[in-house]
Amino acid sequence: MSDIINLQKEALAFRDARDWAQFHNPKDLALGLSIEASELLECFLWKDAKAADPVKIKEEIADVLIYTLLLAHESKIDLADAVRAKLKRNSEKYPVDKAKGRSDKYDQL
Amino acid sequence: MSDIINLQKEALAFRDARDWAQFHNPKDLALGLSIEASELLECFLWKDAKAADPVKIKEEIADVLIYTLLLAHESKIDLADAVRAKLKRNSEKYPVDKAKGRSDKYDQL
Amino acid sequence: MSDIINLQKEALAFRDARDWAQFHNPKDLALGLSIEASELLECFLWKDAKAADPVKIKEEIADVLIYTLLLAHESKIDLADAVRAKLKRNSEKYPVDKAKGRSDKYDQL
Amino acid sequence: MSDIINLQKEALAFRDARDWAQFHNPKDLALGLSIEASELLECFLWKDAKAADPVKIKEEIADVLIYTLLLAHESKIDLADAVRAKLKRNSEKYPVDKAKGRSDKYDQL
Repeated sequence: MSDIINLQKEALAFRDARDWAQFHNPKDLALGLSIEASELLECFLWKDAKAADPVKIKEEIADVLIYTLLLAHESKIDLADAVRAKLKRNSEKYPVDKAKGRSDKYDQL
Repeated sequence: MSDIINLQKEALAFRDARDWAQFHNPKDLALGLSIEASELLECFLWKDAKAADPVKIKEEIADVLIYTLLLAHESKIDLADAVRAKLKRNSEKYPVDKAKGRSDKYDQL
Repeated sequence: MSDIINLQKEALAFRDARDWAQFHNPKDLALGLSIEASELLECFLWKDAKAADPVKIKEEIADVLIYTLLLAHESKIDLADAVRAKLKRNSEKYPVDKAKGRSDKYDQL
Repeated sequence: MSDIINLQKEALAFRDARDWAQFHNPKDLALGLSIEASELLECFLWKDAKAADPVKIKEEIADVLIYTLLLAHESKIDLADAVRAKLKRNSEKYPVDKAKGRSDKYDQL
């Protein structure tokens, strides 16, 4: 029930019912995703993480994921494969013995 | 194999091996997500969608999803439920008969 | 020496020496500005405002302003006039008696 | 009349009349700036640069500049100096003979 492929199908069905595929080129989807990530960020503006509204966070993170699903579809990216490949790559950029307990960027480790 | 819960577990295992939970408050995770969404956007800067590098897009969209998974975990949000609730809400904001074939924002329909 | 028009001329001279006007449509400039604002934000990721690197902040805020100058030029916007018109409009959205000492958005005042 | 220092003073007067300095730590100002840059970007979503609403662009670019002025003040950055130092640095990263007519990032020239 929380399979990415199923969620992606539901987002695509929403889109197709509105005939929006014509607008969904990858560049504009990346714009949309970035804009939604900013709206999510706005939940935390001027406040401590704990003071942010959980209902609003849930709505905005959903928008981020919906655009991620749509952009992945349009760019023919398998998201599960992409995440696993990136975690593997990040493991090399941030080896445990160097990165443990440090928030520095990889080029500063 | 593309279940969100599994991917989330893998992202958390990566994080915990590096003892990074201490940095991962929701506010900074939202910053991280927004920064990654911008790096994804950079794949398309100055160019047509078709000219963007697919390898780079795959890497950056993976980072976006990894932060989404981590932030959802930290904010105790069920992502599949959040996406479905939002698609339902968007169906009300963008009714098919009004929104079909139009890219306008809901308050302009 | 800190006149916006002069700074804008210097940014345009830099651009024209490289024959970059051809890439500078307003949409891509807005992408560039958003990406630079994110790089500025990254100076503060995982850390308290005081721990951010002032040299890096200065570089990134400069990039933000350079793109702002270029986009304003391309969109034929007088920035000083735009700021003053917006401060006036914000004064109406955030009247002193309602907004004083509160960080809420105008629709929540 | 378009001097940065004057505009900065006007933005600070707006802020101080509302007693908002208490919220304006550099980290949250950087969040605010990034959010406004995203709202500016939204003017161009799903459309060609020419189709964007010039009134909206003017308002949003003003917000970006207002936050830039406030953050520069809080971080004790001289914006004119920052822009000139960055243009100089960019001249080294993008030498005319290599960068002319090319939109590539400096590490790909």
